[in-house]
Amino acid sequence: MITSTTNPQPADFADVRATNLAVVLRFVREHAPCSRADIAASTGLNKATVSSLVADLIDRRLVRETGLTENRVGRPATMLVLDGSPYAAIGVEVNVDYVTAVAVDLAGERLLSWRRSFPGPDGSTGQAVAAVAAIVRRVVSRMAKQERQVLGLTVGVPGLVGTDGTVLIAPNLGWRDADLAGDLAKALRDPGFAVQVENDANLAALAEHRFGSQAGTANLVYLTGEIGVGAGIILDGRIRRGGRGYGGEIGHIQLDPLGAECRCGRTGCLEAVAGIGAVLRHAPLSPAEVEIELDEVARLARAGDARTLGLLAEVGRQLGKGVAVVANLLNPEVVILGGYYVPLAPWLLPAVEDEARGRTIAPEGGGCRVVASTLGYDAAALGGAARVLDSVDSGRLPRVS
Amino acid sequence: MITSTTNPQPADFADVRATNLAVVLRFVREHAPCSRADIAASTGLNKATVSSLVADLIDRRLVRETGLTENRVGRPATMLVLDGSPYAAIGVEVNVDYVTAVAVDLAGERLLSWRRSFPGPDGSTGQAVAAVAAIVRRVVSRMAKQERQVLGLTVGVPGLVGTDGTVLIAPNLGWRDADLAGDLAKALRDPGFAVQVENDANLAALAEHRFGSQAGTANLVYLTGEIGVGAGIILDGRIRRGGRGYGGEIGHIQLDPLGAECRCGRTGCLEAVAGIGAVLRHAPLSPAEVEIELDEVARLARAGDARTLGLLAEVGRQLGKGVAVVANLLNPEVVILGGYYVPLAPWLLPAVEDEARGRTIAPEGGGCRVVASTLGYDAAALGGAARVLDSVDSGRLPRVS
Repeated sequence: MITSTTNPQPADFADVRATNLAVVLRFVREHAPCSRADIAASTGLNKATVSSLVADLIDRRLVRETGLTENRVGRPATMLVLDGSPYAAIGVEVNVDYVTAVAVDLAGERLLSWRRSFPGPDGSTGQAVAAVAAIVRRVVSRMAKQERQVLGLTVGVPGLVGTDGTVLIAPNLGWRDADLAGDLAKALRDPGFAVQVENDANLAALAEHRFGSQAGTANLVYLTGEIGVGAGIILDGRIRRGGRGYGGEIGHIQLDPLGAECRCGRTGCLEAVAGIGAVLRHAPLSPAEVEIELDEVARLARAGDARTLGLLAEVGRQLGKGVAVVANLLNPEVVILGGYYVPLAPWLLPAVEDEARGRTIAPEGGGCRVVASTLGYDAAALGGAARVLDSVDSGRLPRVS
Repeated sequence: MITSTTNPQPADFADVRATNLAVVLRFVREHAPCSRADIAASTGLNKATVSSLVADLIDRRLVRETGLTENRVGRPATMLVLDGSPYAAIGVEVNVDYVTAVAVDLAGERLLSWRRSFPGPDGSTGQAVAAVAAIVRRVVSRMAKQERQVLGLTVGVPGLVGTDGTVLIAPNLGWRDADLAGDLAKALRDPGFAVQVENDANLAALAEHRFGSQAGTANLVYLTGEIGVGAGIILDGRIRRGGRGYGGEIGHIQLDPLGAECRCGRTGCLEAVAGIGAVLRHAPLSPAEVEIELDEVARLARAGDARTLGLLAEVGRQLGKGVAVVANLLNPEVVILGGYYVPLAPWLLPAVEDEARGRTIAPEGGGCRVVASTLGYDAAALGGAARVLDSVDSGRLPRVS
């Protein structure tokens, strides 16, 4: 009848070293340039241990000594920074008519960001795998020319992705029960790095958590602003996916039983009343046409067109209801609006915040702020790369070559 | 710009030992009776280390040897079980007109469960502190007679409790900005154990997670079924409170803009349309009267009264909408209905499950089941004791006396 709430593994001495390597790596990530003495002082590890760990990280080319020294009392200290020049982490986002690829180095600096057209819902899963594999091969080849080892690849997909990486359903892509990770690894012919698949909203949340304007916020919810709306939920510093990995489906929470019909067949879903489709004058066609329409909406709003301003305020109020659900249930520090919400944020945000505060039982919305993403269109792909860096930071270090 | 997603402390050798003591303690909790060899085989720790750790746990009287031995090939092994006879963990729940106290031993066996009347909303915070202190003193005194050391005390309160344990608002108790933990520690005159304060729904969820029919489920949401409805959210094995600790306020999520007025002044809140008040024929008076009314409702339902069955199905459908919000957003394995929902569960559950499945975008509700709590009226108090055991299990062991 009694079970434990957590089940950490025992810490044997090999684990101690791996844990401490990760601790030192993260310290350098956050505090570079820094000296071995700084690391010892802040982590509580003794100096001999720190020297040994740093030597190991230098061997792996994760950390390097700079020419710089810091003059302290006593002899000058050699300063350390992240190296990572021999590494790259790759993230890919698959969407209806494009695929985006991003590569970053160990420090998170962007090495490339590519966008290519994609077969989309008319193509088969096989075609999709081939298209993704093609762009990944080109990224890997580019990285090889820079003599970088690929640390891993994460592919983001708009849909329900199980905890095992299987795509259960991606409605806009027409996929069902697709083993994308397995098929992709096969198409890449055993590439020598891990291939993972993840929900796109989860990846965008990871990108915000590592690279965005709210980086490091422990409790953060990202809302994708596409025709569909999904949430990436970070609580206590980690993505929370739920039991099967299907969490974050905020788009089909009913906000208004009398609201517009949703693509899912229900009525008044958040997606139907507060998704970007509710802003468009026409039934959405291709994403390219959506962008053109939204440019026009933003132009009218800037010009003070009353009908447009009223529409954006109404969509903002509906979205605020959705944010209130999140604020009441999860009490995040911040909700970040992404995708097509970003260019409309100046007109949406006041209504969103006002409505959300009025509907949250904790005073001042429980401290929850609402902001627009600053990461741009490749947030999910960038999050794929962030997920690879997360696994390095938690101790899965590349082997010494 | 770059920050890390997690910030574990470095593992020095004292930490290794504390971690391993906790690992062995949890192993014995889950697998007793078991031998030192079993522990070594399952944890990967070497036998000498296990012997040393077990000796330490025996010194602290957390583990003891039984007279039993197990005949294996080779010499017989002495079997170990949890001891804990010298310890007690205390949980208290404060509610509108009663206070409940529970004490358990290290193995989670209930030592006592008391319910006392309470000054309630008409009394001052000072009176409330005095009343809670009085029952706690009596529990501590009873434990002292049994020669048990108190490991800690957690008090559950129906309201917004900050991460620092301050009660921001407990509307039904009339409390605001109450430092209950501090005041209680003072009233108990530095009792020599930690005093913590926590939201009652969070504690009930912890009780379910450790002692309930769904114990050990990693993703579990508990819904209190009182006049107010709150949620305790466990994701990936831990309570998630959000940034300020105000998460779980599902009661004021709007399910129906045209629905009944809520005590909070808004309309169509879950609490108003799916709280236990929606089942009562009269405006709720005292909790004792609520119990009498609900007995009558259950009697009518058992007798097949059509109006009562219709009402319960309607409340079940509304509650199912709330469960769908949780299932879409968090994808838990199970939602547990507590409090007054329990006696009405036979009639509520079919409608709840049906509605929740129909409104969840993942097939079969994402695998989320809905069940009634089996823990009884003292779930939150029991959860207070569970929270104390959680901190022992995560390595805060009592000192050798």
